[in-house]
Formats: sequence, C-alpha cells, structure tokens
Amino acid sequence: MDLARIGATPRGGVRRLALTDEDRQGRDQVVRWFREAGLEVRVDEVGNVFGRRAGVDPSAPAVATGSHIDTQPSGGKFDGNYGVLAGLEVVRTLNDHGLRTRAPLEVVFWTNEEGSRFTPVMMGSGAFAGLFTPEFIRERADIEGKTVGNELTRIGYRGPQPCGQVPGGGMYAAYFEAHIEQGPVLEDADLPIGIVTGALGQQWYDVVVTGQDAHAGPTPMALRRDAMLAAARMIDAVNRIALAEAPHGRGTVGFIQAEPNSRNVIPGRVRFSVDFRNLTQAGLDRMDASMREAFAMAAAQCQCEVDIAQVTKFKPCAFHPDCVDSVRDAARALNLPHMDVVSGAGHDAVYLNAVAPSGMIFVPCKDGISHNEIEDAQPEHLAAGADVLLRAMLAHAS
Amino acid sequence: MDLARIGATPRGGVRRLALTDEDRQGRDQVVRWFREAGLEVRVDEVGNVFGRRAGVDPSAPAVATGSHIDTQPSGGKFDGNYGVLAGLEVVRTLNDHGLRTRAPLEVVFWTNEEGSRFTPVMMGSGAFAGLFTPEFIRERADIEGKTVGNELTRIGYRGPQPCGQVPGGGMYAAYFEAHIEQGPVLEDADLPIGIVTGALGQQWYDVVVTGQDAHAGPTPMALRRDAMLAAARMIDAVNRIALAEAPHGRGTVGFIQAEPNSRNVIPGRVRFSVDFRNLTQAGLDRMDASMREAFAMAAAQCQCEVDIAQVTKFKPCAFHPDCVDSVRDAARALNLPHMDVVSGAGHDAVYLNAVAPSGMIFVPCKDGISHNEIEDAQPEHLAAGADVLLRAMLAHAS
Ligand SMILES: NC(=O)NCCC(=O)O
Ligand SMILES: NC(=O)NCCC(=O)O
Repeated sequence: MDLARIGATPRGGVRRLALTDEDRQGRDQVVRWFREAGLEVRVDEVGNVFGRRAGVDPSAPAVATGSHIDTQPSGGKFDGNYGVLAGLEVVRTLNDHGLRTRAPLEVVFWTNEEGSRFTPVMMGSGAFAGLFTPEFIRERADIEGKTVGNELTRIGYRGPQPCGQVPGGGMYAAYFEAHIEQGPVLEDADLPIGIVTGALGQQWYDVVVTGQDAHAGPTPMALRRDAMLAAARMIDAVNRIALAEAPHGRGTVGFIQAEPNSRNVIPGRVRFSVDFRNLTQAGLDRMDASMREAFAMAAAQCQCEVDIAQVTKFKPCAFHPDCVDSVRDAARALNLPHMDVVSGAGHDAVYLNAVAPSGMIFVPCKDGISHNEIEDAQPEHLAAGADVLLRAMLAHAS
Repeated sequence: MDLARIGATPRGGVRRLALTDEDRQGRDQVVRWFREAGLEVRVDEVGNVFGRRAGVDPSAPAVATGSHIDTQPSGGKFDGNYGVLAGLEVVRTLNDHGLRTRAPLEVVFWTNEEGSRFTPVMMGSGAFAGLFTPEFIRERADIEGKTVGNELTRIGYRGPQPCGQVPGGGMYAAYFEAHIEQGPVLEDADLPIGIVTGALGQQWYDVVVTGQDAHAGPTPMALRRDAMLAAARMIDAVNRIALAEAPHGRGTVGFIQAEPNSRNVIPGRVRFSVDFRNLTQAGLDRMDASMREAFAMAAAQCQCEVDIAQVTKFKPCAFHPDCVDSVRDAARALNLPHMDVVSGAGHDAVYLNAVAPSGMIFVPCKDGISHNEIEDAQPEHLAAGADVLLRAMLAHAS
C-alpha cells in the first residue's frame, strides 16, 4: 500500500489532517514498514513515533532523521512524507547491504507539523524540543472542540514514552531532515540538492484597521475614514519593507477581511495578516519597526486607527555547522550539483536544532509549488536526496 | 401603529426587506393611512403603490411625490420612509386646511428601492420609467430562488395597473422626493435644507486579479505573482483617480475577497469591487480610462493578470430646472437656510426624472450615517423638509 493513497484527493493530492482516521491509517502503514525494516517502534505521549535501529555501540547517542506525515487540507504527496520515507529508505539500504553502524539510527515522524487542524504548527517536534509542555499540547482543540489528547487516545497514538527523552538518556548526536524545497530556487538554478544552512525567522501579526463605514455615494472623499484604503497602503508597505531586506526578507499579506464588505459601502473595518521573515533577528526587528511607522502613517492619512498584534514568532535558525558540512560533503562525494539555500519555511528540524545538532537537505519541487494538490517532484531528485541523507547520517553514525 | 415598529431591530433600526412579510405589513399600514387621508389607492403590476387626491381640474396632469418603504437588512427608520410619510403629511395638511389643488396629487411608494433582496436597485421606479420591463422584474429571484412575481402575489401586491401609466393618460407634471441626505455635507454646513440639483452618475466594476498562490516563506520576493499586492496598488489608484476629479468624483472599494486567504500563502487570486461616481459622463469616462491604465500597470508590476467587468451603470442626472427652482423658492419663502447639493446616491427620483420633471429635497441626517441601524435625523429638519415639499408641489399643482 502506497502512503499517498491514504487520504488521496481526486486531483492527485492528499488530505490527511493530523490525528484524523486518515492520519491513523497513514501512521499504521508507516509503523508496519518500520517493523518490516526491523526497527523498534516507540510512541511518545504526544504521538511522535520513533523507529530505532540498534547500533554496534549501544552507549553511542543515536543519529536521527524524520519529518511528518500529516498534510494540509488540500496538500501534496511529498511535503513531510518524503522525509520520513527517505529515512526508511536509508534503513532499508543499510539492511540490504548488511551494514551496521556504530551509533543507533532513528527514523521519526512528528505529530501535527502542518498546524492546519490544531495550532501551533510543528507541534510534536516543538514539544520534543521542550518548547511546549505535553499538557499544553494535549489540551489544544480543533474548531469542533476535539482535543489533541482525546484524538491521540482515539486513534491509539497516545504513547507511554515521556516526550523529549531518548533511550539510554542523552540526546541525538545529530538530526537530519530531507524535504522538498517548497519554493522555486533549486528548480530555477536547475540543481538537484540544496544544502540548507538555516531557516528564516518569522514574525506574524494580526492587523485591524478601523475607520467608519459610510455610504460610497454621498460621502465626500475628504470626509472619509476609509479602512480599505488605509489597509491597501499598509499592504504595499509590507512589500516595500521586505524588498528593502533583500535577498532574505519576505513580507506577505495572505489573509484579508473587510466589513461590511458591500460594494457601495466604504469599509469601516479591515482585518489582515502580516507574515514577515528574515535571516536575522536584527532584520526582523527592522521590519517590525518600519511596519509600525508605515502603518501609523497610512492610518493617519486615512483618519483611521490601526491595531497590530504579534501572534507568532520563530527565531531565525542556523543549522549546526557540522551537520551542514556533512550534507555538503555528501553531495560533493556523490557528485550531485548543489547550492547553499536558506529555508523560507519552518520545519521540524528547526525545533530539533535547539536540542541536537541538525541539518536539512532540500530537493526541488515542480514550479516551487507546495501546500497544493499539484505538488510534484522528480524521482531522480528524490532518490538523490535520500542518497545524500544516507551519507550524511553515516558520517555521524559510523 | 408607527411604521418604524414594523421590522424594528433591537438596536433601533428597521429590517423590512422588499416583498417580505414585514414589507407587506408596512405596505398595509401605509395604504390604510392613504385611505384615511382620502387618497384613492392603485397598485401596479410590479407592486408600486399610488395614492391619488383628486384635483379641481380632472384633466390636469398630476403632481406626484414619493419614495420607498423597503429597507436595508440593518437599515434605519428614515431612508425612504421619510419621503413617503412627508408626502402623506402634505396631503393631511391640505385636508386639514380644506384646500383643493387644481391638479391631482399623488403619493407613491416604489417597490424595492434598496436592491438588497432583489437586484437591480430602484426596481419599481426603474420599471415605471420604462428602463425594465415588468416581465424582467417579475423574474428576478432572491438567493433562495423566490421571484419578485411570486412574492408580489404572495403578499397581495401584484396589482392590476399596467406599469408606467397614470390615470387619464399622459405623465406627471412634476415629481418631488424628500429624503435624508445619507451624507455629512448639510450637517457639516449646519443647514436644514439641501436643494438637490442632480445626482452623480455611477459605474460599478467587478475586478479579478490573478497571480499564483505560493508559500509565503520559500518564495523569493522577485519570483512572486502576488495578487494581494497588485490589488492593494489598484485600491490606492481608485482613491487617487477619484481625488483627481474633486469635488464630485468618488471612488470606493467596498468588497474584497482573497484566495486561499491563508496567512502564510501568497494569494493567487483577489476579487474586489470598484464604485466610481461623478457629475458628468466625461468625468466617469476619464475615471474608467485612468483605472484601466493604473490597473494594467499594477498587474504588470506584480506579474499578475487583471480582468475588469463593468456590472452597473447609472448616467449622471440633472434634475429639471423648474423643479430645482421650485424647491429653492420654497426654502426661500419659508426662510429656511439651504444650499445646493448633488446627490451622491441613486434615488427613485433619478429614474422618474427620465419621464417627468423631477426634483429632490434633502434634510440632514446624524453624522451623515445611513444604511445603518443608528441612522437618525432631527424632527425640526424633517418637518422643514415636508414644508418645502408642500410648497414645491403647490407651485406646480395650484
Ligand atoms: N513547511 C511549512 O510549510 N511550515 C509551515 C510554517 C511556515 O509557514 O513556514
Ligand atoms: N439611496 C441609495 O442608497 N441608493 C442605493 C444605490 C447607491 O449606492 O447609490
């Protein structure tokens, strides 16, 4: 049974939201494959699943890899799933060649990376890294009020292992994650492998612009308090602010909602989101300051008020130099053309990097498109990524 | 029974959508008042209701007044209703003083001025003026699929009179409509009476901006096709274009919708509305041309496409000089401070003006707010408006 068939959508994508029946089926399938590959399976108290391959030296800290198998509501086959299956392929390859490593190896899938059904995103890896307590995680509810704790129990994945602990104590010697790039850079450069040096920091905001709703006809331009106009100028400013932080600054307004949202009424209230990303905290701080200045000016121009609430923050991440080097060395040894890239998205590896030296391998995806049923990637790129993963892991486990 | 109690809302407004049970109750109440005031009641085939007071000269064409009694979903007590009750007050005043006029007088309420439940707006007066056929009107359906024709029959207001005809043949000698201003100009100028010289022309558009939805993190700024950014620049342009047509140009984006409308996804599609108004068709044509130029430029800057569909058009209206003068003379004779104003909104009188000399009287409303439950107006202003209406009508009917 093919993993992408579980929750398959008509247009070739996958819908396997965290802790649903589809997720349970996907988990059961991967666990079967783990066992068939000889891995010893553990499940922790927030549903993270670990498959362990013993090492020659039982006291050596394990080298781990993994990602996630939950998907977006209309997601693709590759996001997350690729990293877990690449890890499984590493184990199968070692098995096929009868190779044993000094250190134990682990393949992991982390609970609810996507954050679609339950917030926060990257929940399982965040809990493993100690950013969220298991209690906090288990109380998180979806829009129907179903909690992570109850859903874990229902699907049989509330495990006995304390979250954040590794057998034998200590922590992983290293963690690697292979993932599709989810952006267009590698494809544009026509390269199969990205050496991920780090991930952009993120600051997300909820913005509410308040003016006065009024009739679009009789209200003279000069007497308006047009929240839509103010919001439009703010959205333009978000773009300007990100461009000033080239090449790593990103600024996106993905969500907008106007009230009363009627053709011939000047909107009295507009809500929108801001997603800022940058390579450094200083850069994010500059973006934050520029935003506050630009938004205050746009609001004043339109006789509106603006309220800015920061709702999410991920610090910029630099992956561990040893892990980044291992990935680069592996690509070189395999004669695979490659370049250094920075992840624009958050990943489980970003959280893991806080507790263990971590690194990532990117492979191109078609047109840079992800979080979409049409997400696609080339078999030779996927295979190349798994080869790099194997070599990088061996560099730490041999 | 007070008209504003029928469909009264908790916050002091009125919800009496066209051809609902509430509208039926409102109609029944006004018809009772018409009959109590001695008016002979006719209902036409699209539900317009006419109350006629005979004149001394039965062959003289009638002088009419009126407005509408349907409301917005969360509307106020005054929009439309004031004009109908002011007309009734004119008749009662003449009755009280035992005065007969040479020409017959009519008080009318037109079906579905608001356009909230059924489009187009100003349906009944538009049909009376010959812009829409009765068949077209009766087939219009609400979102539940209920048609104007069936709803007229259901509430008992599908009348026998052919639409657009007046007893004795011919057309009205003049039509006057008293209305709250729905804007802030009179209140700002502290004047009780506005002499309405005309109404702005309107051109409404549906705009669709298409880019490519992509992940907000990994997609570099330079490779984006950000439909939200393009839309924001277009919204700013709408404002700039309207300001260039001061003092009568108006530009409003009241409606917006983004896809997929998710925080960390660059929107691939944004839809929004444009409402342009101006005093002259040449002015509207300039706005249309400037918009197309600005939108094409914004789309090109963001590597997006833009589609612009015009969905509504009302030509600019100049009320008949005789009627405008009669309103001004009446205000002067009554020593009521006044100014010339242009209606920014469409009104039944705009359609009537196409078939009979027409004019309007505005009175201030609180904070210029209308289409809102908090809509309010001062009793002395309302009374002053009715006095002006009486004198203006007598100038044509005596
Ligand atoms: N990989 C991924 O889509 N993470 C979700 C959080 C983000 O927007 O970066
Ligand atoms: N009076 C009024 O609200 N008319 C509706 C059409 C418009 O927006 O002007």
